[in-house]
Amino acid sequence: MTRRIDRRSALKFGLAGLGAAMAVPVAARAEARPTPRATGDLGLIIERAVGRVRIVETTGRTVLHTIEGLGDLSHASAVFSRDERFAYVFGRDGGLTQVDMLEGRIVNRVVQGGNSIGGAISQDGRLVAVSNYKPGGVKIFDADTLALVADIPAAYEGSTEQSKTVGLVDAPEQKFVFSLYDAGETWLVDMSDPAKPAVTKFKGIGKLPYDGLITGDGRHYVAGLFGEDGLAMLDLWAPENGVKRILGGYGKGDKPLPVYKMPHLEGWAEADGKLFLPAVGRHEILAVERGSWREVGRVKAHSQPVFVMARPDGRHLWVNYAHPDNDTIEVIDVKTLSVVKTLKPGPAVLHMEFTPRGEHVWVSVRDLDMVLVYDTRTFEVLARLPMDKPSGIFFTARAHRTGL
Amino acid sequence: MTRRIDRRSALKFGLAGLGAAMAVPVAARAEARPTPRATGDLGLIIERAVGRVRIVETTGRTVLHTIEGLGDLSHASAVFSRDERFAYVFGRDGGLTQVDMLEGRIVNRVVQGGNSIGGAISQDGRLVAVSNYKPGGVKIFDADTLALVADIPAAYEGSTEQSKTVGLVDAPEQKFVFSLYDAGETWLVDMSDPAKPAVTKFKGIGKLPYDGLITGDGRHYVAGLFGEDGLAMLDLWAPENGVKRILGGYGKGDKPLPVYKMPHLEGWAEADGKLFLPAVGRHEILAVERGSWREVGRVKAHSQPVFVMARPDGRHLWVNYAHPDNDTIEVIDVKTLSVVKTLKPGPAVLHMEFTPRGEHVWVSVRDLDMVLVYDTRTFEVLARLPMDKPSGIFFTARAHRTGL
Repeated sequence: MTRRIDRRSALKFGLAGLGAAMAVPVAARAEARPTPRATGDLGLIIERAVGRVRIVETTGRTVLHTIEGLGDLSHASAVFSRDERFAYVFGRDGGLTQVDMLEGRIVNRVVQGGNSIGGAISQDGRLVAVSNYKPGGVKIFDADTLALVADIPAAYEGSTEQSKTVGLVDAPEQKFVFSLYDAGETWLVDMSDPAKPAVTKFKGIGKLPYDGLITGDGRHYVAGLFGEDGLAMLDLWAPENGVKRILGGYGKGDKPLPVYKMPHLEGWAEADGKLFLPAVGRHEILAVERGSWREVGRVKAHSQPVFVMARPDGRHLWVNYAHPDNDTIEVIDVKTLSVVKTLKPGPAVLHMEFTPRGEHVWVSVRDLDMVLVYDTRTFEVLARLPMDKPSGIFFTARAHRTGL
Repeated sequence: MTRRIDRRSALKFGLAGLGAAMAVPVAARAEARPTPRATGDLGLIIERAVGRVRIVETTGRTVLHTIEGLGDLSHASAVFSRDERFAYVFGRDGGLTQVDMLEGRIVNRVVQGGNSIGGAISQDGRLVAVSNYKPGGVKIFDADTLALVADIPAAYEGSTEQSKTVGLVDAPEQKFVFSLYDAGETWLVDMSDPAKPAVTKFKGIGKLPYDGLITGDGRHYVAGLFGEDGLAMLDLWAPENGVKRILGGYGKGDKPLPVYKMPHLEGWAEADGKLFLPAVGRHEILAVERGSWREVGRVKAHSQPVFVMARPDGRHLWVNYAHPDNDTIEVIDVKTLSVVKTLKPGPAVLHMEFTPRGEHVWVSVRDLDMVLVYDTRTFEVLARLPMDKPSGIFFTARAHRTGL
């Protein structure tokens, strides 16, 4: 742990006040302060086994800070404040931790539920929402203080317990959307007035929605169904039309394969006017036309896809796979729907994150204890950063996007 | 002039910068130094008549810095370094100025041509390209030092003079694209090896290309033609197919109106799988389907559109108009292609910039000497910032996008 500035120093040196400043020699003070640093090229990497995160920068490809004490980080994810100053890390143990990306320290941490599964930040950056398995429901916090602003219990007909909530995303105009795993519902929450959350409930969307995605423009919300075939789609430009079933065959096939790992719907991609989705239990990626929601192509893949990620220019998809084939990444050309490159980064490739304009991709290789950085044009490895069981990688440019 | 931060100056200058700093007591100095500050919510606004720029922040909606000495800023534009630390401002007088967004000062400035018209930054952020009217051609500079890396004169058959260059944009994989006004050509420059620019020339694209755009994914480059009807389109996923003519009727009409101001092709919008373009000389906006490039709709507008801008979620278009109707903004619903709101911000609305996730829009009203900030959901005015003849507004989130 380095370079961090504790509250006292901030007090001493900042705009805010100065207490014992007179006692400190001038030169030492100047030294102790970081030079100004911009935040557009920063990122946060989860070290899942040790409850730790690393703050990195993608220009020189180095680690700037190491921060301990974030609890259980298996399946952890993060979102960013609108100025890119703070990350909000959602831990599996219900912990919500606000991390200062510049000073490399925890600013605030609450354990808000018993078992949580991701979160989202409102369009204006003032509200952070967390989705809970236990006790269920969604809680919404003030992004500055982590004070509770709204508690939305996922009560539903026929049960005294709350439903697990999944697929929580932010949407334009201060909305959040999520689904109720046990209840088979999708809820749209309007937080324009934080004191009065307005909840619209869509019931009977299908059995056991297990994850959700929202398109980059925040228009189409799609939930995956564990209990039946097809996907449940809500058009936020026409919520009065309700949730519709699309891709009726999605989830089955004539020769179903054992499902080693439920594909993340976060691991879908949008490119060339199409959505690309991992085919459940099959060695395939589905290309689906947006709007008509018809399947327009399939790509034969190495194994069962987990994350299908589009390079930001949409020309290539980078795909990783489920155990036991998780040492491999395939790069697929979106124009021809064919594999153009196979990479073997090492055992247990867990996550990939592109630099915002797509020139590089950072790859977590858990059992190699390493993050690799690839040039996406030449496929050359540009850097190897040792990390302890790295998983999720999150760059600050996400601050400026919807539904991430 | 160098770009590095002199420790003493940093100490001396603090937030606003000033001469007699050595005389200031230590405590005051500490106070004058900025606390660490993130850059995701910063922006730069051009004050065109006085050669000055303002650095603003969009969270509290305030001015942080005022920077003088940027030369002739009529039609000036800006791009950002990948970390959002620096802006590169392209002036009309050929000036290229590197501005430090955090310290609020000019770090470097070169006058690289006699008369220039915009620029672009490479995918990896290392190269800044500038397009010149005089003497013509494109020059490419090192983003750190502003040293000349490549000079690409726009020589063409049948002339001893260079062509004016227009419509310069960056494209994926370290490319730039621009068009030659006098020659009727589009050039694609691959800068993967900065020492050896590889230029592919597309000749005979049409008469007098006057501007260009590239789609958000960096795939389709479209040049507007002043000398004939239609647009010239290059698909960068298939450059071997050459430049094709699309929208044959674009630029004319059965009852042409006088053209008060050539529409900017930068002022196009992409939403709902369509491009929206100002119709030349007509009170209309054209909706064009991407891929087929067919016209699929028209919106009747208040006057001749100048900038057609999509709210980042693509639900609304915000449109400003040419003189004498330039006191008006119309907001158009993309789903119904109808006007849902008319605003009268004041005389000479020159530019609009959305916050990255679209909750607000900042509007330059030149002859009111004011920038207005609107809530895009309620249309309420949230802030009025006095500025001297404001024109272009550029937010740092542009650092993460292609072709801006």
